[in-house]
Amino acid sequence: MTATIHRLCTPQPSLEPMLGLVAGDLNAVNAVILDRMQSDIPLIPELAGHLIAGGGKRMRPMLTLASARLIGYTGTRHHRLAAAVEFIHTATLLHDDVVDGSDLRRGKRTANIIWGNPASVLVGDFLFSRSFELMVEDGSLKVLKILSNASAVIAEGEVNQLTAARRVDLGEDRYLDIINAKTAALFAAACRISAVVAECPEGEESALDAYGRNLGIAFQLVDDAIDYVSDAGTMGKDAGDDFREGKMTLPVILAYARGDADDRTFWKDAIEGRRDSDDDFAHAIDLVRQTRAVDDTLARARHYGQRAIDSIGGFAGGKAKDAMVEAVEFAVARAY
Amino acid sequence: MTATIHRLCTPQPSLEPMLGLVAGDLNAVNAVILDRMQSDIPLIPELAGHLIAGGGKRMRPMLTLASARLIGYTGTRHHRLAAAVEFIHTATLLHDDVVDGSDLRRGKRTANIIWGNPASVLVGDFLFSRSFELMVEDGSLKVLKILSNASAVIAEGEVNQLTAARRVDLGEDRYLDIINAKTAALFAAACRISAVVAECPEGEESALDAYGRNLGIAFQLVDDAIDYVSDAGTMGKDAGDDFREGKMTLPVILAYARGDADDRTFWKDAIEGRRDSDDDFAHAIDLVRQTRAVDDTLARARHYGQRAIDSIGGFAGGKAKDAMVEAVEFAVARAY
Repeated sequence: MTATIHRLCTPQPSLEPMLGLVAGDLNAVNAVILDRMQSDIPLIPELAGHLIAGGGKRMRPMLTLASARLIGYTGTRHHRLAAAVEFIHTATLLHDDVVDGSDLRRGKRTANIIWGNPASVLVGDFLFSRSFELMVEDGSLKVLKILSNASAVIAEGEVNQLTAARRVDLGEDRYLDIINAKTAALFAAACRISAVVAECPEGEESALDAYGRNLGIAFQLVDDAIDYVSDAGTMGKDAGDDFREGKMTLPVILAYARGDADDRTFWKDAIEGRRDSDDDFAHAIDLVRQTRAVDDTLARARHYGQRAIDSIGGFAGGKAKDAMVEAVEFAVARAY
Repeated sequence: MTATIHRLCTPQPSLEPMLGLVAGDLNAVNAVILDRMQSDIPLIPELAGHLIAGGGKRMRPMLTLASARLIGYTGTRHHRLAAAVEFIHTATLLHDDVVDGSDLRRGKRTANIIWGNPASVLVGDFLFSRSFELMVEDGSLKVLKILSNASAVIAEGEVNQLTAARRVDLGEDRYLDIINAKTAALFAAACRISAVVAECPEGEESALDAYGRNLGIAFQLVDDAIDYVSDAGTMGKDAGDDFREGKMTLPVILAYARGDADDRTFWKDAIEGRRDSDDDFAHAIDLVRQTRAVDDTLARARHYGQRAIDSIGGFAGGKAKDAMVEAVEFAVARAY
């Protein structure tokens, strides 16, 4: 008997298998999203639509849909819930861009730049309320519990990140706490709720939660690495954005920990906002290269990616499982 | 047989009877509030506590508690739900102050001034999520539906108000739509949910909803009138705040509608932000006096106050009913 061990090894992994797997379901989810972002107040669908229709990958709804496929769920309740998850995500993006003063997301001008901070805050609140209305319509208190908890954890994570801002001595553990809360919690919930509507045993619920959570951490780590290697074309954000905003991410944490006294002074100055020129960024790139900080951020990402893959090891093989494995490979391979 | 007709006639109405009625329950609600605004992230209870402990009247939780007394509910489920209502309210205040750029609320510096807009946005999100966690713990899908709908309506109302900002031709009807959504919806929901947990007939639910809704409108109208008559001591806001921010409220709508061409030019300039000096405000006060705009705003408030009182006419008389009637009288008498 031979064990089947899924490893991070596909040469050019892509999201295509997952997209193909859930294409029909995703159309249904998009229909719910478009229907439920409507309002008599024209600014609401206009602003929400800018972000919702604006090239997002629908990563979280896709995870809900793919998880449902993995466990053989044949109903349609997860369509509405996947839309609720996307609304929560969109609401947090709108508020994030206000909090960070961002001007670009996915290569487009942000809503707060076009319509102003007040509109972004309020339309975020609207989408957040609408997501709960969708969940209430579904009627599962267990799903409501999972997603209201995830929402509170996300907000806590955002505040945690805010209070950690510009602290060069943040450390990897607290950083992981932050991304666990602000990114991985919703990935985990998106996967878990499919197991809830399908009434799977607790073990399968936990396995899907772990898949989403580890994938979410891997995803965020790669995003953070990309800021120190790529240009604006790669993912619709400018390389150096995080650096110029003094954002503490793992590449900085590692470069700081591994640097000499001069390097640490440089990072402290940069994170505290006293170094944000192009030359400073070029020097930062040098330092992360010398300290292998990006390489090792990506190695950490692969660690969590492998954990995501192994957490669904117990499910029967097939198209859904293959697509979910390749989605992880895609997530961790984006920076190469 | 003589009919009992409650009228707005108590000489010096106060909130004391209602406070006395619900004092014990309110302690229980405050305990839930203090317990559930905690977090491992110290900024969250610090910022939330500034507003929650900062002299708010707990008007909405009190309405939940008084409504429960009116219908003879003897359980404790409404304590947790009243806390959820206060969290929703606090979240909207935090976001409102960011949206309006306010620097003073209830006579204290606002959270956004002390901790910055980002923290206010995110702690608002946290409290909003926490309110849903409290509702989920209670477990009533009907309550969840009422409060998630109220939250969406509030956010819609806020966006409506934002798009109506600085439009001198707003009109009374659209203004009423706005305050119905941003103020009255939560007053209505706060009262209605007590009828839900007590499993009252639909007619009693609607009656309590109507009481809260009409009281909420009256309350907001009086707030808007006070801005044109009082000084900062009266309610912790500066007289003229609304004027200087170019906010469209009923006193302005009436003064504009009743003014001559010069007056209208003045109001247009003021609302569009070209007149905000002390002299301008003094002139505005003259105009609202000449046009009886404040008097008639208060007359409108009394109309809704009387409707609130009549909507609970069908309930048996007693301490609770008397207190709820006097609370309305207090709300509409505040400006005299």
